[in-house]
Amino acid sequence: MSENFNVGLENIEKKDYDEALQKLEALFGSQLSTNLTLRQQHAHTMTWLENQPADAVLMARDKQDVAKAVAICNEYQMPVIAFGIGSSLEGQLNAPYGGLCIDMSEMNEVIQVNNEDLTVTVEPGVTREQLNHYLRDTGLFFPIDPGANATIGGMVATRASGTNAVRYGTMKDVVLALEVVTAEGKIIKTGTRAKKSAAGYDLTRLMIGSEGTLGIVTEITLKLFGITECVGSGICHFPTVEAACEATMMTIQMCLPIARIELLDTLQVKACNQYSNLNLKEMPTLFVEFHGSETGVEEQAQIFSDIVEECGGSDFAWDSNEEERKKLWHARHNAYPASCALRPEAKALSTDACVPISRLAECVSETAKDIEASGMIGPIVGHVGDGNFHVLLLVDTNNPEEVQTAEDLVGRLAKRAIDMDGTCTGEHGIGQGKQKYMQHEHGDAVLVMQAIKHALDPNNILNPGKIWSVEVEA
Amino acid sequence: MSENFNVGLENIEKKDYDEALQKLEALFGSQLSTNLTLRQQHAHTMTWLENQPADAVLMARDKQDVAKAVAICNEYQMPVIAFGIGSSLEGQLNAPYGGLCIDMSEMNEVIQVNNEDLTVTVEPGVTREQLNHYLRDTGLFFPIDPGANATIGGMVATRASGTNAVRYGTMKDVVLALEVVTAEGKIIKTGTRAKKSAAGYDLTRLMIGSEGTLGIVTEITLKLFGITECVGSGICHFPTVEAACEATMMTIQMCLPIARIELLDTLQVKACNQYSNLNLKEMPTLFVEFHGSETGVEEQAQIFSDIVEECGGSDFAWDSNEEERKKLWHARHNAYPASCALRPEAKALSTDACVPISRLAECVSETAKDIEASGMIGPIVGHVGDGNFHVLLLVDTNNPEEVQTAEDLVGRLAKRAIDMDGTCTGEHGIGQGKQKYMQHEHGDAVLVMQAIKHALDPNNILNPGKIWSVEVEA
Repeated sequence: MSENFNVGLENIEKKDYDEALQKLEALFGSQLSTNLTLRQQHAHTMTWLENQPADAVLMARDKQDVAKAVAICNEYQMPVIAFGIGSSLEGQLNAPYGGLCIDMSEMNEVIQVNNEDLTVTVEPGVTREQLNHYLRDTGLFFPIDPGANATIGGMVATRASGTNAVRYGTMKDVVLALEVVTAEGKIIKTGTRAKKSAAGYDLTRLMIGSEGTLGIVTEITLKLFGITECVGSGICHFPTVEAACEATMMTIQMCLPIARIELLDTLQVKACNQYSNLNLKEMPTLFVEFHGSETGVEEQAQIFSDIVEECGGSDFAWDSNEEERKKLWHARHNAYPASCALRPEAKALSTDACVPISRLAECVSETAKDIEASGMIGPIVGHVGDGNFHVLLLVDTNNPEEVQTAEDLVGRLAKRAIDMDGTCTGEHGIGQGKQKYMQHEHGDAVLVMQAIKHALDPNNILNPGKIWSVEVEA
Repeated sequence: MSENFNVGLENIEKKDYDEALQKLEALFGSQLSTNLTLRQQHAHTMTWLENQPADAVLMARDKQDVAKAVAICNEYQMPVIAFGIGSSLEGQLNAPYGGLCIDMSEMNEVIQVNNEDLTVTVEPGVTREQLNHYLRDTGLFFPIDPGANATIGGMVATRASGTNAVRYGTMKDVVLALEVVTAEGKIIKTGTRAKKSAAGYDLTRLMIGSEGTLGIVTEITLKLFGITECVGSGICHFPTVEAACEATMMTIQMCLPIARIELLDTLQVKACNQYSNLNLKEMPTLFVEFHGSETGVEEQAQIFSDIVEECGGSDFAWDSNEEERKKLWHARHNAYPASCALRPEAKALSTDACVPISRLAECVSETAKDIEASGMIGPIVGHVGDGNFHVLLLVDTNNPEEVQTAEDLVGRLAKRAIDMDGTCTGEHGIGQGKQKYMQHEHGDAVLVMQAIKHALDPNNILNPGKIWSVEVEA
């Protein structure tokens, strides 16, 4: 595959989709727009990747809209890209070959809550905050929290996870079933509301994380979880990131059922202090949360306290007060804008990697040294309980040298993680930004993925140019 | 699809594989056998399905053996069926088109335990009991327990689960990565040891449950779990199966993190008393297990005790004594032979279904009435915390009328479960026995599954005639 960072973004022949667009316009009228600003907004990449707008944006109102539009796109071999809220981080929403962007944000109904089964069925445009607001009186909640107020459809597409994944899993673990529009414009169901099944291939898990390249999700049935009797939140400081990582590793290795364990390095803590007007000690810090009964939470906190001490940490304090907790996690969720504020004229590139927990300290520490040596500003923050962490690189994208330095850093991080038997992305996905690491990570398995893609989307209309842009040679 | 119970087993044209067999024999010598008894043993179905032996059995010693053999099979378009220990329940190991059976049981090495990461990598012939014996001094265990001492490879193939799944998940949840031989005889890796990844399609989950139709697994990396400080086991009785199911539903709905909750109906308890020489009260019974800290287990047991009382149950007693626990679960694991002993001259057909937990009582109770009305002997036993239960039908397979009655019962159960938004099989898989329910459960999604099958195995050599025998029409 190409060694170019913007693989697949050059020499692209865009076709003329006039006939298809006329057909779409006749069918959808004012739901379809070709306004440039709108199209550019829908190709917003949250990265330094070039903005590549689609030819038109369709505001879909229901699954039939999606099915009809995809059928037309398939007829004319026109690309089709589903859009949720635009929070993806690797250029998943760009339209390098033009085509139709289907905006799913108006398909935002919570269709059915089944309290007795701890399940909910939603349309893809429902956001995670909207869903939890809807559930507020049920005693249930949806745990997956990638930070951004992403849509559930987008979270399916990128196999999202985030702060609670260490206890509740990722999207692959909490989705029971999907309704999907195939490349032909057929609507299929990939599962039932039964908690498990051994009936045929797991199309649900195949669709999750496929970044819109195998189908467009129009309905999602999710597992919900009971809000535990007690929630305790805490914070503690460490002399080094290694020590904080060691404490995390010990927590996981002792099988403590911690609900959240988040690392912020010194620079990130500084950024949060400035942005959220806090007074946190400017040292490597862990934010933690415990879910359980009152005695259960106390037990967990006591064990964690011993771990902190053993790893040279300090000031561990925890509380089950909800307001304190919200303040703490609000600051954590603002890590991204807080980092951006460290260098307002720059663009923030959030990259992520994930390694087996035993390699966490090593991987974070080598990465921190690498960032320092590069002279870049790049706070580290992470869902370290899963061995997953982010670097937020602040890059002046008008300075080609700086862009190159950043690209090289990201490349070294991806390779470092893969060489530690990890992955080049724990939760952001491949999109356009990480294609060149696919073969290093997966080898010939990429050929198997591509065979599946060809089988399900022979005209390559579903989000083309994502995950890979060119065929890997056998 | 055909409405015939033995769909695909008639009018099968077997090809002549002499040339392929000669090539295999030249390569593998005494590892290859064409002995009829051995071939028949390897096609043992644990069902009433006709025994359909392969043309030869290969004892594979390593992944290279598997890769070479599959490449030859692909060259000659000869079917290839992987064999673990022969405990599958829906005819997965039959060879309706002849071909090569690859026996994986000598590939039974535990390759690497990574205590620090709570992972282990094994060859596919390792059995779950062998694995847990190997882990005995590590403080870790592998929780998936389908009853039989199945091989890990076989458990991957059928997406196995069992008694602990209510807390620890199924095979889809505990497999981190696979090494797979593709239909072409290439060896690929489907993942890494990182706990999560968003890098490309989830081939791991696609392979799990594909019953050997998409590839042959040669290495499996599994998550392990810490043995909790305390394990408590208990038993309680209910006036009706509905009441026992109600208690189960309430347990799940209250999000009690129960590790096992197993239903035995009155007939099954009688069978266990006779077989295991026990004195259990002959009433609908729940066997339960709690994992946690000492106070955690006590809390769980107290809450469960309240639930039992509320649902009209009685005699709830629990204990953290290991010997008592082993005796109890030994009896549970012997439910299958115990049932067989109820009618020694008959063959036992174990069928399973799974529904959303809110429909459990209804589904079990309708099924119990259906069995009674049919006049058959069919104890009910189940992993009810997942909404999953089994009927063990004791059938005189020499009596065509009785076979028909049993087939009809199984068919009504499958349809009942599907119509309750459940599945025709929670854990046994489709194999040959449940093909005719695939379309009712999945509709057009079967076409998507078949497109994947064609893409990955264009010559249809990998366990052909399983999951489906004929193409579904679009």
